[in-house]
Amino acid sequence: MPRIGLVGFGYWGPNLARNLSEIHGVILAGIADTHPARREAAAKKYPGVQLVADASDLIGLSDLDAVVVATPVSTHFEVALAALKAGKDVLVEKPLAAGQVEAKTLVDVAEREGRILMVNHTYVYSGAVRKIAELIEAGELGEIYYYDSIRINLGLFQSDVSVVWDLAAHDVSLIQFLLHRRFLTVQATGACHFGTPLENVAHITLGLEGGIQAHINVSWIAPMKTRQTIIVGDRKMLLYDDLEPDEKIKVYDQGVVFKPDRRADLLPDYRIGDMYAPRVDRREALANVCAHFVDCIQTRSRPLTGGPEGLEVVSVLEAAQRSLRDGGRQVTV
Amino acid sequence: MPRIGLVGFGYWGPNLARNLSEIHGVILAGIADTHPARREAAAKKYPGVQLVADASDLIGLSDLDAVVVATPVSTHFEVALAALKAGKDVLVEKPLAAGQVEAKTLVDVAEREGRILMVNHTYVYSGAVRKIAELIEAGELGEIYYYDSIRINLGLFQSDVSVVWDLAAHDVSLIQFLLHRRFLTVQATGACHFGTPLENVAHITLGLEGGIQAHINVSWIAPMKTRQTIIVGDRKMLLYDDLEPDEKIKVYDQGVVFKPDRRADLLPDYRIGDMYAPRVDRREALANVCAHFVDCIQTRSRPLTGGPEGLEVVSVLEAAQRSLRDGGRQVTV
Amino acid sequence: MPRIGLVGFGYWGPNLARNLSEIHGVILAGIADTHPARREAAAKKYPGVQLVADASDLIGLSDLDAVVVATPVSTHFEVALAALKAGKDVLVEKPLAAGQVEAKTLVDVAEREGRILMVNHTYVYSGAVRKIAELIEAGELGEIYYYDSIRINLGLFQSDVSVVWDLAAHDVSLIQFLLHRRFLTVQATGACHFGTPLENVAHITLGLEGGIQAHINVSWIAPMKTRQTIIVGDRKMLLYDDLEPDEKIKVYDQGVVFKPDRRADLLPDYRIGDMYAPRVDRREALANVCAHFVDCIQTRSRPLTGGPEGLEVVSVLEAAQRSLRDGGRQVTV
Amino acid sequence: MPRIGLVGFGYWGPNLARNLSEIHGVILAGIADTHPARREAAAKKYPGVQLVADASDLIGLSDLDAVVVATPVSTHFEVALAALKAGKDVLVEKPLAAGQVEAKTLVDVAEREGRILMVNHTYVYSGAVRKIAELIEAGELGEIYYYDSIRINLGLFQSDVSVVWDLAAHDVSLIQFLLHRRFLTVQATGACHFGTPLENVAHITLGLEGGIQAHINVSWIAPMKTRQTIIVGDRKMLLYDDLEPDEKIKVYDQGVVFKPDRRADLLPDYRIGDMYAPRVDRREALANVCAHFVDCIQTRSRPLTGGPEGLEVVSVLEAAQRSLRDGGRQVTV
Repeated sequence: MPRIGLVGFGYWGPNLARNLSEIHGVILAGIADTHPARREAAAKKYPGVQLVADASDLIGLSDLDAVVVATPVSTHFEVALAALKAGKDVLVEKPLAAGQVEAKTLVDVAEREGRILMVNHTYVYSGAVRKIAELIEAGELGEIYYYDSIRINLGLFQSDVSVVWDLAAHDVSLIQFLLHRRFLTVQATGACHFGTPLENVAHITLGLEGGIQAHINVSWIAPMKTRQTIIVGDRKMLLYDDLEPDEKIKVYDQGVVFKPDRRADLLPDYRIGDMYAPRVDRREALANVCAHFVDCIQTRSRPLTGGPEGLEVVSVLEAAQRSLRDGGRQVTV
Repeated sequence: MPRIGLVGFGYWGPNLARNLSEIHGVILAGIADTHPARREAAAKKYPGVQLVADASDLIGLSDLDAVVVATPVSTHFEVALAALKAGKDVLVEKPLAAGQVEAKTLVDVAEREGRILMVNHTYVYSGAVRKIAELIEAGELGEIYYYDSIRINLGLFQSDVSVVWDLAAHDVSLIQFLLHRRFLTVQATGACHFGTPLENVAHITLGLEGGIQAHINVSWIAPMKTRQTIIVGDRKMLLYDDLEPDEKIKVYDQGVVFKPDRRADLLPDYRIGDMYAPRVDRREALANVCAHFVDCIQTRSRPLTGGPEGLEVVSVLEAAQRSLRDGGRQVTV
Repeated sequence: MPRIGLVGFGYWGPNLARNLSEIHGVILAGIADTHPARREAAAKKYPGVQLVADASDLIGLSDLDAVVVATPVSTHFEVALAALKAGKDVLVEKPLAAGQVEAKTLVDVAEREGRILMVNHTYVYSGAVRKIAELIEAGELGEIYYYDSIRINLGLFQSDVSVVWDLAAHDVSLIQFLLHRRFLTVQATGACHFGTPLENVAHITLGLEGGIQAHINVSWIAPMKTRQTIIVGDRKMLLYDDLEPDEKIKVYDQGVVFKPDRRADLLPDYRIGDMYAPRVDRREALANVCAHFVDCIQTRSRPLTGGPEGLEVVSVLEAAQRSLRDGGRQVTV
Repeated sequence: MPRIGLVGFGYWGPNLARNLSEIHGVILAGIADTHPARREAAAKKYPGVQLVADASDLIGLSDLDAVVVATPVSTHFEVALAALKAGKDVLVEKPLAAGQVEAKTLVDVAEREGRILMVNHTYVYSGAVRKIAELIEAGELGEIYYYDSIRINLGLFQSDVSVVWDLAAHDVSLIQFLLHRRFLTVQATGACHFGTPLENVAHITLGLEGGIQAHINVSWIAPMKTRQTIIVGDRKMLLYDDLEPDEKIKVYDQGVVFKPDRRADLLPDYRIGDMYAPRVDRREALANVCAHFVDCIQTRSRPLTGGPEGLEVVSVLEAAQRSLRDGGRQVTV
């Protein structure tokens, strides 16, 4: 019966609290937040839960088994490190840390202390992404050629990280989970607008092992919300639109076929076939995340998105940010 | 009563023939195409029109006033040059030529010979783009910050040019027409797939005068067709979706407002207001193109998309192609 | 500081509980449900709230000010009547009762006892419908000619009422709220499928005062979910799509203009102008419902959707059901 | 080598002329239209074709094999009758005639004279409808339960027929072609607006043999264009959206399953499975119509949509119009 504490009850913390509190056999034992108004909100919602201002007061509780970190990115390292050192298992919001060095330290400390370190790469736990992984593993798309993702909308401007750290983190973790390839190179262009010092729009090209190219377009300044990912294989093509209520995944039985001795002409040899939209499990991804964390705690097994995965994502983001600041120069991960 | 000849009756030529033949007072005098089957198709459709295999036979006709060039890109230069030298006014399909040097030559010859040289940057003549230009000029969007365009679908693979020369040509001419800024730098990443030697997907970042950044995403290997352009100004944001039958342009009265002494917090200061979709003239863009060409012939005036505009677009495309081949290095236009 | 009890913690009750518990100054004092599993779920969520199996045990509590009824339609009458007679103010889920006679009794008893009787016609309290009402009242659409609504999807099959009582209840209350016209006649066709005794699809034509016609299409057996309402005025036309995340309301500046002496010809005289989508308040409608009920309790004022409004809706539904069973014969309300 | 004449070069005639002229081995021999401007337009487009003002001058041509009638509905009978009596095969635009008696006469005369009489129920010849027919015949949907169609947009107001004769004609012919059931009863409600004497909106409920119910919603006064048909079977459900460029048909593997001894409860037993969109032949339906007519002429075979089919559609429309004028009373076909 794990007792779990939550650090941070701002934008995302309440969702974690709700999901943790709904898992049978888990006790949400305490919540830490520096803002009094948020503690008050938490108290109204969770009357029996202990509330503290300071994360260290929560982490110091001897009867606590695990800590969930939902604070601003810049503080992930400090809070997670303290929790690991206090012998707690830790789930950190994505990205794992604000830099590669810090992320590496967390991985090492977790390893040394024998603690679970998990990163909340939420989408990896969604029904849609699970289904895409199944399709790819079953060879439905054939050999993967290309990945292209658009993740744009108006806001939320973050005050401590650029749009790369905020939104592109999702796509890097999805590419990691779906394609199983090492990241080799990163190039990123982007810009700051409305007088802010942090990039609010970015285009990132990733070179993966095996010659696969991936592209990520993230923006906080688009007039409409878009969440579309294209995955092109040599057999079929897939469109994943996370905003579609019912048909989140569409698999297109189409492609390009070049006849060997084709003469240059205007009629291309395309194959256009049926499309199908497989049924997707609608369970909230965050519920799966929390259940997986609890399962790892209880079985002492490695999380699907553990420290090493979180570290790799941070490395890619850091490289992207470096390329961005360096005029789009190619950076090796 | 201008007499016009058409070179090329393949994929696009028939559309030009149809539009030219429908202009009151214009005589579609001849059509040249090397393929017998196409000449036959043209003969059935336009019984009174002279048909020749060789472009030079058409260009040589002394009673011809103008020539429209709808051949593969690699032959634009040769055909257009011959026509200009024969004293004809010339309308060339986009892009003007396959390289900057050739395009420059065409501009110079047209200038020297006192001939009209026009490039068919079709979208510039569409009702939607005209309306966007009006809105920008009226200050509706405020100062323009950002331009981002997605122009993807399955096919048509071209056999002589990459997707950059084929599809990105549209966006470069739109940016030219709408933003009135000089192009400074280009960076492009992309890839070839399905064993072809020409890039079928590309991401291009353009640096414009005044610090504006534009991005173009073009692809021949997407499972679905998308034609979406976002234009972000400091007052309003615009979405142009050319596939929408009725609401091609949406203007969003929204943006980001930062209060001067704002404390870092999670609630951003956004302005979300009404959206409106102005009525767009539905006349076929190509009809406007042909009418404008005829008008330039008759009034001896400079086309809206003349040689210099065509040359600039070719320069940008050439720079993009160079960046693409050079691993995404920043190239000066 | 009103103390409110909730009867029914099945499909919809938990949403009412959540919204009531979030209103400052309101005490969710008790919840009644005959199912032990639901009481257990309620106890986990609301630790301090009294839980009983029998509604009468809740209604009998002397310190309770009001009762919210979220039980199956067939029991609305009995529970609401008991609560009114016990001196409680009452909010009943739509429809007010399963028949006109019962609804009338509730209205009379509430009147006699001086109690608030409110029906949860939820959509009336949504930001979108409020905005539509504003537009109509401001004369934006001109004189209203026509109302047509589609409310279809797969499920939920109700076990005690037909799709008319379930889904059409929403539209009848919207027509009532938006058009302010008396209902005169009803005609309904429909069918039962999959071996059920209750109609799962129906088409209802309503004749309103002033010659306005309204049509409602409801179904539980459609492959996709649709929530679209068209309102046609002699000045403008409106489309209300409740499933659109951002642009729920679109106002089209278009119509038909007949020139007096128009000769029969092929060019119709339409006016096609701009479209705009006004910003809609996104607050959850149910939060507004609960707040309005509490406000009525405290100020002793008549609810916007009180007993008389609920009674009229029930009368129309009953007439529709009668027409349905009678082969679509026109029935007077 | 059939020689075909066309009567009527207004809104739809030009499309017929274009398709006829593109069929190999067919000669578009003459066009009749009473409007000089239209004859002029036809002459420009089809230089070799004989042009006359009076239909009878065309029909009288002895070397003409067939006549296509694209005049206003009210004149179909007169023109088609004259053509049949002159020994020509005849293709008439839908609906076959303005009334059942006239339609019956045409069927009888064609029979007696041994002439081909075909009605242009265009959609029957579209790739999408052909595919739907295939799916139904293969038992993909199971037993058909329900058909519901929405065919609405702004305009074109017809000056001689109501929206029932104009738009509902399409759906009646589709139901005829797809479901192969006799029409038994019709009920229709609707209204005239904008001061016109003809109904511009109508809702029609059709009772078919075997207890199937179909519904048709047609309107000329909707703010947006919709062309959606739902077909519900006991195995699967189908959505046909003719405005979708690529995915016109979606087949949903979903339905309702009632367990035999199910207790009344809130969790329904639905089956929600995959969806697929079969590839649809994109050939223009009108090209298929013209090809089928020419084939019938040459092989002397019965058209798929011949006189009897046209007569049945007219009978249903006439019954619908009668019901409409009679307050929605059920009318037997």
